Amino acid sequence: MVQGKINEIYGWAAMEPGVKVKPWSYIPRPLGDNDVEIKIEYSGICGSDMHTIKNEWMRTAYPTIVGHEIVGKVITKGEKVTHLEEGDIVGVGAQVYSCLQDDCNACSRDLDPHCPSCVATYNFKYADGHTSHGGYAEAIRVDANYAFKIPAGLDPVYAAPLMCAGVTVFAPMLRKGVKKGDRVGIVGIGGLGHLAIQYAHALGAEVVTFSHSPNKREECMKLGATTFVNVSNKEEIDAVRHSLNFLFITSDSKSSQYNDYITWMTFEGQIVLLSLPMGQMTFSPIEFVLSEVAITGSMIGGMNVLKKTLEFSAKHNILPIIERFPMDKINEALEHVSCGKARYRAVLENTPSDI
Amino acid sequence: MVQGKINEIYGWAAMEPGVKVKPWSYIPRPLGDNDVEIKIEYSGICGSDMHTIKNEWMRTAYPTIVGHEIVGKVITKGEKVTHLEEGDIVGVGAQVYSCLQDDCNACSRDLDPHCPSCVATYNFKYADGHTSHGGYAEAIRVDANYAFKIPAGLDPVYAAPLMCAGVTVFAPMLRKGVKKGDRVGIVGIGGLGHLAIQYAHALGAEVVTFSHSPNKREECMKLGATTFVNVSNKEEIDAVRHSLNFLFITSDSKSSQYNDYITWMTFEGQIVLLSLPMGQMTFSPIEFVLSEVAITGSMIGGMNVLKKTLEFSAKHNILPIIERFPMDKINEALEHVSCGKARYRAVLENTPSDI
Repeated sequence: MVQGKINEIYGWAAMEPGVKVKPWSYIPRPLGDNDVEIKIEYSGICGSDMHTIKNEWMRTAYPTIVGHEIVGKVITKGEKVTHLEEGDIVGVGAQVYSCLQDDCNACSRDLDPHCPSCVATYNFKYADGHTSHGGYAEAIRVDANYAFKIPAGLDPVYAAPLMCAGVTVFAPMLRKGVKKGDRVGIVGIGGLGHLAIQYAHALGAEVVTFSHSPNKREECMKLGATTFVNVSNKEEIDAVRHSLNFLFITSDSKSSQYNDYITWMTFEGQIVLLSLPMGQMTFSPIEFVLSEVAITGSMIGGMNVLKKTLEFSAKHNILPIIERFPMDKINEALEHVSCGKARYRAVLENTPSDI
Repeated sequence: MVQGKINEIYGWAAMEPGVKVKPWSYIPRPLGDNDVEIKIEYSGICGSDMHTIKNEWMRTAYPTIVGHEIVGKVITKGEKVTHLEEGDIVGVGAQVYSCLQDDCNACSRDLDPHCPSCVATYNFKYADGHTSHGGYAEAIRVDANYAFKIPAGLDPVYAAPLMCAGVTVFAPMLRKGVKKGDRVGIVGIGGLGHLAIQYAHALGAEVVTFSHSPNKREECMKLGATTFVNVSNKEEIDAVRHSLNFLFITSDSKSSQYNDYITWMTFEGQIVLLSLPMGQMTFSPIEFVLSEVAITGSMIGGMNVLKKTLEFSAKHNILPIIERFPMDKINEALEHVSCGKARYRAVLENTPSDI
């Protein structure tokens, strides 16, 4: 069996609920025949990271190194890995393992994030008992199926946020068949939303953006929106009622807002929840039945859709707008994201080293 | 212009919120060239009737004659009506008019219940200012497009509940493509639910029924269910978790139950709300996103799907289980339905007369 090069992985772990992380290290699981070892270069900061380090989902096992928008260089590969070479620049998203068996009801349908054996990139247990740790670190070992070669022409630092934010918005657009002529609404112009505008626009849709921040209007139009709606302005809202075929919710909406969202939709329109707000969502049954609007959620994207996301982004030059932070300024970066100041995605950078 | 035969229509109207109706009459709008006048023989009692006479939807304009599961005989037809003859036995459902124009965004897509000019069978205004009144009466005048010939071989008294309850459950099954091999759950075994079992079974699906009443088990199996789940029994619920492709909700579920419903579904399963419970429905965003389950509502069915419902029911011998009440025992019948005692649909019968 091939040995990994880094026997103790140093990173920044949340030790307790809060927005602070501290230097910490762990002994990684042995490098399997199908695994690769990656020297991390970039790591985006995702909203899920914040929920996890704050234990807002009540599922955090401390200490945990979060981060699942990872880009780095393959430095070691297991004996059976054939599609990657040492030196390849690869991305890792929110998932690092699934069974990929033909008899798996999830994997066989390209729904590997729902595989019963799925292992999330951090704060999760492998079958062998090891805990997964993520990208706020110098390295990571993952199943090679979940290390995706970054296409030539896609700058690696920009590829990082595509590994979670990008695929999360693009996957449901592909699955639901967003197409030319559709009117697509995007609620929340942040890490996910500013990418969603670009994907929907590239798919040929008319894009209507919804935000509380009128100062984002110009940027939305530049990214491909046809219409910007200030949600505090009733006239602007009224002008788009009953007009949307799709609505992607990327912000933490209040539970009371969903009934209003229904009125923005054409009948049989589809609302897709991509964020994970605290609390419950509430709907009025009568509005729901009269409109025949469908509401669904969508969670990341499987192996194949992640590949498609990278290819589509490279082809259409879809790039996140990022702010770069050196890894040792990580707590500053987390604070910045936690206050909602990121425009629009923060990416941590490791200092280049010789490995 | 052809004159109608009945110039004052006698019926039973709700005069104020409650479950009592009283004899009352109204002058019908003139018979239009595209209208038919129908002598009512049977009128089913629908849950919507109860909500309306009690003003539970806060939209009732008293006095109102409700009832939209109507079967009767055409006694007069307008000059331009070509597809019906006097003497034909026809059904009328929850809708009596739509524009049916090619440039209507609803009608052109077979979604005529969403037509902006749609007129509901009762408690609704025509464009000319007349109020629509329903089936708890001796007669009704409607647009002939919304009078559907009852297929030979379908006993008219059984056809009545198909005009609303039947099409309401069958329309979304057709639209969503319920098919052989699907596992279809039905929540609530009442007027809608007992028909939903039969339609899903006839479409080739495995049917799982959910009820609080274990004494309905045998009847569900007879109607075509493969599995009966007593929702008070945790073991029976656990046995079906993550197994349903579709779930049709036909009962007034409590707002807190929806998160549990999500756990009954396979990922990407579809929950369809057919009832109109009071209060709000609440969902947990995280369960929603992790499951990728879609929730939608469905409202009656358009002209074409109503025709298909009648044909499919005749072909597969799908009949409601009914209790018959003479029209002059209407208050007894309403009380019976209001207490949840109907097994499973109450049908009012007019005394045959010479007209």
